[in-house]
Order: sequence, then C-alpha cells, then structure tokens
Amino acid sequence: MIDVVYGDFYTLSYAKGTGTKIFFSLLLSFVLVLSLIVPTASAKIKETKDASKAKRLHVQIVLFDGFDLLDVTAPYEVFAAAGMYSGEKVTVELVSAEGKRSVPSGLNGPSLEAQTALDPNRSGIILVPGAAGKPTGNTEDTIPNILRQPNETDLPDLMKQAFDNKEVTVATVCGGSLLLAMQGLLKDRHAVTHHIGMDALEAAGAIPVQARVVEDGPRLVSGGGVTSGLDVALYLVERELGPQIANAVETLFEYERRGTVWKAKGIAPIDFTTSQ
Amino acid sequence: MIDVVYGDFYTLSYAKGTGTKIFFSLLLSFVLVLSLIVPTASAKIKETKDASKAKRLHVQIVLFDGFDLLDVTAPYEVFAAAGMYSGEKVTVELVSAEGKRSVPSGLNGPSLEAQTALDPNRSGIILVPGAAGKPTGNTEDTIPNILRQPNETDLPDLMKQAFDNKEVTVATVCGGSLLLAMQGLLKDRHAVTHHIGMDALEAAGAIPVQARVVEDGPRLVSGGGVTSGLDVALYLVERELGPQIANAVETLFEYERRGTVWKAKGIAPIDFTTSQ
Repeated sequence: MIDVVYGDFYTLSYAKGTGTKIFFSLLLSFVLVLSLIVPTASAKIKETKDASKAKRLHVQIVLFDGFDLLDVTAPYEVFAAAGMYSGEKVTVELVSAEGKRSVPSGLNGPSLEAQTALDPNRSGIILVPGAAGKPTGNTEDTIPNILRQPNETDLPDLMKQAFDNKEVTVATVCGGSLLLAMQGLLKDRHAVTHHIGMDALEAAGAIPVQARVVEDGPRLVSGGGVTSGLDVALYLVERELGPQIANAVETLFEYERRGTVWKAKGIAPIDFTTSQ
Repeated sequence: MIDVVYGDFYTLSYAKGTGTKIFFSLLLSFVLVLSLIVPTASAKIKETKDASKAKRLHVQIVLFDGFDLLDVTAPYEVFAAAGMYSGEKVTVELVSAEGKRSVPSGLNGPSLEAQTALDPNRSGIILVPGAAGKPTGNTEDTIPNILRQPNETDLPDLMKQAFDNKEVTVATVCGGSLLLAMQGLLKDRHAVTHHIGMDALEAAGAIPVQARVVEDGPRLVSGGGVTSGLDVALYLVERELGPQIANAVETLFEYERRGTVWKAKGIAPIDFTTSQ
C-alpha cells in the first residue's frame, strides 16, 4: 500500500507541464492524504510483524495421582482452542514427573494419559492443577493429603528447576498453588488458591490474595477454585498471543473471562478491615 | 416431637382435681402452642421423608470418538461432587455405545475410558456431549463430520430407547443436541446447541431456543456451547436433589449457575423481531 502511494506521489511531483501552484496544491493534498494513510499502513506492517514473530507457546500441564479433572481439562481445552485459532502457535501436552503413564484423577475419577515427562528446561508455561477429594478430614482421600503425596516424587525438584528457568511461567489452578507452597516454592509470593485453602497457603509461606487470578511478577500466575482454570488460561492466552485469540476462544466456549487479574501494580486500595 | 406434645396434652387434659376454667384455659394455651409447633414438626418430618426417599440418581455420560473433553468433564465433575455432598446419592459413569473402551477426544486430545456400555433401560440421566473439532470446513476433523460418525454405530438405536424410557432424562451439552437431531430424535423438540450450530439444529427438525439451558418437558434438557455443561449439570442436580446440594457444588467450584432455564411455561415474551 505504501509503495502505491509513494508511486503516485513521485509520478505527480515529476509531472511536467503543470503550474507551480497546482503542483504545490497537489503536493499539500498528498501530504495530507499520506499523513492519514501512512500511520495505518505502518500499523498494519507492525501488526503483521508482531504476529509472525509471535513466539510459539508450549504448555505443559502436570498430572499427579488424585489431580482434579476439571482443573486440567478446562485450561487444556482453552490452550488447544488457542492453538487451533492461531495456526498451531500454541501446543499443549499432559506431562507427569514420572514420564508417560496413565494418571488417575481424584475421587475415583477417570484417568488421563501423561504423554511425556515434565521438562523444566522447556520454555513456555507449566501449569499445576489441584486435587479432587474430600475438602477436610483425616482420610487418605482428603485434598490436603492428596496434595502432599507429590512431595515424595521428583515433582518438587522439577518445579524448583522450572521456577529457576526464566523462560518458564508457572501457572496454577485451585490447589495447585497450595501444592507448590507445601513444597516450599511460594515463599513470599502473592498467590490465590481454592477459598478453603487460603489459610493453609498463608501458613505455607505464600501471601494469599483474594482474586480470581493473581499474577506475581510475570512468571507466576495462580487461579482460585476449580473453574478459575478457564480464567487463568484465557489470561495467559491474551498475554502471550493477544486479545483476538483469547476472544475467539471465549466466543467458542460461550464463556467470558471473570475478574481483574491482581498484580502488584498501580495504587493499593485502603484496607478498611484494619482499625484506622 | 409430635408424640411428646400430644403426650403432655393428654396428661394435662386427664389431670383430675383441676377446675373446669383452669382446664379450658390450659386447653386453649395448648391448642395455641400446638398450632405453632405442629406445622413446624410436620414440615420437619416431611423434609426428612423427602431426603430419605430422594431417589438415587445415576448419570451416564456418553463418549464417542472425537467428543469434546470439557463437555464431558465439566458435568462429570458436577455430578461427582453432588455425589460426594449427598452421601453418594448421585453416581456417574462414562459409557459408550460399544461398551468398555478407550475413547479419543477431538482435536487429537486425551482419551477417556468408557467404563461400560450405555444402558438405555437404566433410569436416571443420559448425557450426550458435543464434539471438538474445526467449526467449519470439509475435512474429517470438522465438528459436523465428527457428529455424523456416531450415526454408523448403535448410538441412534440406544438413544431412541432412552427417549422411550420414561425414567430417563436425556441431557445434552453443546453439539450433543445437534448429534441427536441429526439422528432424527429431536423432531419438534425445543433445544439449544452451540451458537454456530443453531441453524443446523433447526434444519434437522428441532425448534432452536436461544438460552443457556433449555428444558423441553421434564425429559430433555439441552445446553449451549462448551461451558454450559456446568449449568446443565447444576440445574439437574438442583431439580433432582434440591438447591442445597447444587449450591454446595457451586461454592466448591467457585462458579454460579448462569441463565434462566427456558421452559414452555408462563407467558411468552412479545416477539419484536417480526413486523407487528
């Protein structure tokens, strides 16, 4: 488009046999037209460059025995749909600390197959779901007990490497942040978890924040209870690929992202819960 | 509680040596007290009876090749949580027309294991999900093509039996209603599907209704796009087990059911889209 405009401009400015007045009048018109057209054209070029250089995003979703099915499948499907709409710029796979294996979800739910081992050296997003189980009690099938079990595996070591990798964003849904906090990995980090687990999150050293989605720096994004996995994934799709892909996924899913993503930016609200 | 009250009443009314005036005064007081206590006591008894006679609800969720993962897992988890909160009054299983087998979800997504064959003679809910694939096009992996494939299996026959069974409610999520309509099973029935499929639903003989959840009679409940599976399942949990269990699941999932369930009841709104 720019070529065509410049082409006409040069043709005209070099046109012989026209009076100086007409020439300058035409020149002025074309400068005006150019001032309208060029920024649009530049924006279009910039947009195309942005799209072409948009890094491919790889998402690993971590499975462990007793994981919550919806914590995994909701973000899985958001990222898969983002891949579909972006010409496969997003890829997503299910992983486990132990490698390829069938992993049972909690409450005797269905199993999902981890396709490969969690790779903390691979750039992109590593998402940790919560567990499905009884909210409280002393039996093995309570959520706190299920979240404690991965401590005995390689997961804490792998997640520590993930946190050390500057090319990785760690995301969590529901009890996922509590799982990491129980492994000592969220010390002094802002995070949210399922509302039942907020006290436990604080006790494990994190700074609990009441929000649907919390971003602590760019490399830790946590979500609240179960269905917040939709919002965590939609936020990350927007952040990494822009609002158009995120909006397309929302439309496809007949869902609108919920809540302002909390970040330690801007002014903080006055705390009316403490005595002033 | 009623026994105790009547006991005291008879004891008093048969008490000898009290004056007639005192007796009638006391009688009047007790009638008043009874009029306050008995209805409450009756309500409590009725409530207990309601709870104890609450039928066990069995939910079969149908898997077919190319099913949409979230269409299945969102209602699965709602019903599973309702089971947890009701002392297992709700049970849910994944089924297929072919029986026990591993069924791949669409868009090369993870497989889920159908535990057994779909049984149209078993009372309860039979839920049919939609497909995951490209929304349009001519390739095999488009949603209309994936939805057409179960026509070649026993699913249409089994679903026809399900519709004939008065103890079964058929529920659908997303393309599930379109799948049934394409099998000729939704002729003149009110239903909703994913917004992209509404015209196809009408072309297949159903009456499309723009709503998050549509109930056609008590035995057909359909939902819109993907995430409406949460709303379909929460509505059915409330309908079958009452609002307290549904509310507990909502709280656990940090989700609030969306939309008024459309039914052919009450007055119909004036249609402003047709010329008056």
